[in-house]
Amino acid sequence: MNIGFVGLGSMGLPMARNLLKAGHHLTVWNRTRSRADELRSLGAQVAESPGQASATGLIMSMLADDAAVQNAVSGEQGIFGALPKGGIHICLSTISTALSQQLTEAHQQRGQIYVAAPVFGRPEAAEGARLLVVVAGPPEAIERCRPLFEAIGRKLFIVGPEALKAHAVKLAGNFMISSMVETLGEAFAFLRKSEVDLAKFHEVVIGSLFQSPIYENYGRIVLEQKYEPAGFKLRLGLKDARLILEAAEAVAAPMPVASLVHDHLLSGVAKGQGEIDWSSTARVIAENAGLKS
Amino acid sequence: MNIGFVGLGSMGLPMARNLLKAGHHLTVWNRTRSRADELRSLGAQVAESPGQASATGLIMSMLADDAAVQNAVSGEQGIFGALPKGGIHICLSTISTALSQQLTEAHQQRGQIYVAAPVFGRPEAAEGARLLVVVAGPPEAIERCRPLFEAIGRKLFIVGPEALKAHAVKLAGNFMISSMVETLGEAFAFLRKSEVDLAKFHEVVIGSLFQSPIYENYGRIVLEQKYEPAGFKLRLGLKDARLILEAAEAVAAPMPVASLVHDHLLSGVAKGQGEIDWSSTARVIAENAGLKS
Amino acid sequence: MNIGFVGLGSMGLPMARNLLKAGHHLTVWNRTRSRADELRSLGAQVAESPGQASATGLIMSMLADDAAVQNAVSGEQGIFGALPKGGIHICLSTISTALSQQLTEAHQQRGQIYVAAPVFGRPEAAEGARLLVVVAGPPEAIERCRPLFEAIGRKLFIVGPEALKAHAVKLAGNFMISSMVETLGEAFAFLRKSEVDLAKFHEVVIGSLFQSPIYENYGRIVLEQKYEPAGFKLRLGLKDARLILEAAEAVAAPMPVASLVHDHLLSGVAKGQGEIDWSSTARVIAENAGLKS
Amino acid sequence: MNIGFVGLGSMGLPMARNLLKAGHHLTVWNRTRSRADELRSLGAQVAESPGQASATGLIMSMLADDAAVQNAVSGEQGIFGALPKGGIHICLSTISTALSQQLTEAHQQRGQIYVAAPVFGRPEAAEGARLLVVVAGPPEAIERCRPLFEAIGRKLFIVGPEALKAHAVKLAGNFMISSMVETLGEAFAFLRKSEVDLAKFHEVVIGSLFQSPIYENYGRIVLEQKYEPAGFKLRLGLKDARLILEAAEAVAAPMPVASLVHDHLLSGVAKGQGEIDWSSTARVIAENAGLKS
Repeated sequence: MNIGFVGLGSMGLPMARNLLKAGHHLTVWNRTRSRADELRSLGAQVAESPGQASATGLIMSMLADDAAVQNAVSGEQGIFGALPKGGIHICLSTISTALSQQLTEAHQQRGQIYVAAPVFGRPEAAEGARLLVVVAGPPEAIERCRPLFEAIGRKLFIVGPEALKAHAVKLAGNFMISSMVETLGEAFAFLRKSEVDLAKFHEVVIGSLFQSPIYENYGRIVLEQKYEPAGFKLRLGLKDARLILEAAEAVAAPMPVASLVHDHLLSGVAKGQGEIDWSSTARVIAENAGLKS
Repeated sequence: MNIGFVGLGSMGLPMARNLLKAGHHLTVWNRTRSRADELRSLGAQVAESPGQASATGLIMSMLADDAAVQNAVSGEQGIFGALPKGGIHICLSTISTALSQQLTEAHQQRGQIYVAAPVFGRPEAAEGARLLVVVAGPPEAIERCRPLFEAIGRKLFIVGPEALKAHAVKLAGNFMISSMVETLGEAFAFLRKSEVDLAKFHEVVIGSLFQSPIYENYGRIVLEQKYEPAGFKLRLGLKDARLILEAAEAVAAPMPVASLVHDHLLSGVAKGQGEIDWSSTARVIAENAGLKS
Repeated sequence: MNIGFVGLGSMGLPMARNLLKAGHHLTVWNRTRSRADELRSLGAQVAESPGQASATGLIMSMLADDAAVQNAVSGEQGIFGALPKGGIHICLSTISTALSQQLTEAHQQRGQIYVAAPVFGRPEAAEGARLLVVVAGPPEAIERCRPLFEAIGRKLFIVGPEALKAHAVKLAGNFMISSMVETLGEAFAFLRKSEVDLAKFHEVVIGSLFQSPIYENYGRIVLEQKYEPAGFKLRLGLKDARLILEAAEAVAAPMPVASLVHDHLLSGVAKGQGEIDWSSTARVIAENAGLKS
Repeated sequence: MNIGFVGLGSMGLPMARNLLKAGHHLTVWNRTRSRADELRSLGAQVAESPGQASATGLIMSMLADDAAVQNAVSGEQGIFGALPKGGIHICLSTISTALSQQLTEAHQQRGQIYVAAPVFGRPEAAEGARLLVVVAGPPEAIERCRPLFEAIGRKLFIVGPEALKAHAVKLAGNFMISSMVETLGEAFAFLRKSEVDLAKFHEVVIGSLFQSPIYENYGRIVLEQKYEPAGFKLRLGLKDARLILEAAEAVAAPMPVASLVHDHLLSGVAKGQGEIDWSSTARVIAENAGLKS
């Protein structure tokens, strides 16, 4: 298929590469142009603006946050203005359910189609086309785009016709991960103060009992206190915590653990940890137990 | 080996059965004698008291809580009085780190040896000898008892020489499970109010993303609201929440998620859910979101 | 002085009345015009728009929330367009620190002056000109407006030149009240379940020990469960809880009690209590303790 | 009246002095004898044991915690053994509701009478006989002892015939204070990071709006970070937090703010603040906001 792709960060770049490998024709745009140029050798064309990339009639966006998405859709060279009637915008970014709903309405008013398709997985999974793609939007549009989802992911979860629900699922999943990281942090602080060998605890109990890659991976990071380079920056984790709390407030569902995780992430920012891995909330928790990291 | 075994509840009975199958000679005792009699046909002898079962010189106990353990060790017919010098008491129960420490000292004063060996796993895992056994105590004693641990479990985690640390690990593991159940409850309440299909969420996201039997199993229970019969009673979950908070207070490690889970379990008891499965805290959370179960 | 006044709700109306009584000339505007007409007999003139009321060169606004303030300042008939250069806008409303900062900048760009002056006190206090007025903005402007503050309040707290800080103080104060209401709710639930006579507890302990009108007044409301008519609606309490959390996030200050209060207010909304008094979070707390109200 | 008095700490000593001043005859006992000797010049007799002081038939105890009370009642020279039949034990200490209930039963079995009479007030209030005395127990016994309560307090709150309820009231009151200290800490951290003048905030808002001596006094301590000498030690505050949580668990009433305060006090202990004033939780909160004290 002939598609546009905007946003070539640590997630977007490997996704675009996998789309090219799968035989699709890409017109890519990135704020920092050099990253777009990297894809030229693989056959991609480089656009001057999100709008130019949208002329293909099918545009995928993988951007950092609500503000970046709003910039890409609005303005003279934005997606809203350039996407043809009947064209599809696939939003892969993790954004607020509120913005997802606004995009649904704004595209509809212009005779365009909006599909929400946030993904689960870290950069390595994006590289290996092993993402879990959560999709919501008009069924026919989803079917038309299925080959694209298959090119980037190992599994597809179709939530239904209302786009914002895919983002609700994505936020719920991220919340679950963040809660597991918090849980690890509390268990580790308790066990360190109880003078239990954490490495062994990680190996035996976490490995054997929980069998979850989340505990496996974050357990290792927290154990080694290897928060740099950040796999996912703490300040972005705080953003996601805020998004789930906003989404939960919109449907009147209290989420006390999400509030608690939010407060620990905020403490992390206050302590200067915004740019290191978000699992460094474990350090906040350890300091509250009187431990020096 | 020739051993005593006291406490034949839903966990103790299958454990004793596996010890018999492995060729050990058992003298068993249970408060309700009929459960002990069940083991006669498998070759077990039935004792009149914990003390009588301890005459073997090696006694394993798998009892409900601190009070039950204290009853079994103390008194005229208790373990303290009957276990020979040099004899070993293996405590398989989930008890407080404080009691575990008291038992260490009390046995030592009597020239006896205390080994803590709490286990992870539900009754099915006990039946299949697939428990994870967490052991701490004098190394030689642990080595001597290794065949017993291998008869009941699939994996052994030796924490070190201080018995109470095995219980610290057990409490930390239980806390992690309880936190995952809380997390599920919050995610589900949010998604129900967002009108997302929970069964599909469970299938795809939980199955694919988290790959943890904890989310798999409890997800199903919460989804179907099948809290009866209880796999693990809520009031016992509350007991465990109290134990981890006490243990954490003893080493000055704040655990705010543990506090929050405790409060939801307590609310469950207040609402009459003490005898149903502890994952029914999901109902407490749902009601706080205005949902009827 | 010759002033405009927009927003004649349960707080704004008595404030405007007190300004008239103090001899000032008022041009008033309200979305629902009938409330403006009530002031005619006291000598007020009625404007057709916030802009028309601003022609006086000094405009006070007392509106429900951020959205209402944004409506009043923007648009063709708004304050921004109509207030003369050098004119002053006194914002009495409880709004976000973010909007307060935006208003500072927007007025400055137009050569206008913005003074933040949120007030503490319920409608009875507004009626009796006993409000506590928290002011921040350019010192000369504050001095010029001093007679107005004295006409509505019993006490003036000048925070400094940066307007948003007055709103930070207001939000902090509201948070303190909300936390006291939460505290009352928890203490009362515990004591009801302990079968202690709450009325007596309120009379003796709260009266004698705490001597705070907050506990006195809310204690009575919660005791009698007299949540209607609402002195302050729960959904507005939720709005304030959100505002303090946003302001606290902006300066990276975790406020876990504020998060907890927010979640209980959200639960109140979920349970249909949005339009009754915000102290009905005590009912949420009581239900979590298994009590029927 | 002729009475015994055990426990001459910073609270007990001034209380005993006021009883002497009111004309009562005292036989006093204290673990550290020198403090008892101080009262000799005022006419008190010094006993060798709690039991000897109980021979008067009316014994008041003002001790640090559950353990100290248990020591004083039990043993050969304890109150249980020495108090005559029909004699009264007035427990002024802040103890657990569980122990208060045990004392009720234990005294009853011995034909003795137990009256719970915990007090509100700091050492200065004890000195000035301005305590608030919360009493529960058999009505006739309370009436008989009324002159004693009047000698130490300014106000009497009779809860009813069940002794443990007086302790429930005391714990609820202490919880309310601790929650106000937490609230202050959060508001101050937020305002410090918002660069608002805290001293002025304290003067105007706390003085004027809340009018509570709790905010006045603790506000000053936190503002000046004058945590030494401790008016009330943090580790004792932690003890009280544990007592209310235990009492609340016993009646199945979740108290999430109490849990949160408990966790902050525990963090204070972990950070080495156990012996300074309990309001130094404000420092824990400030550090979580990235502030150095």
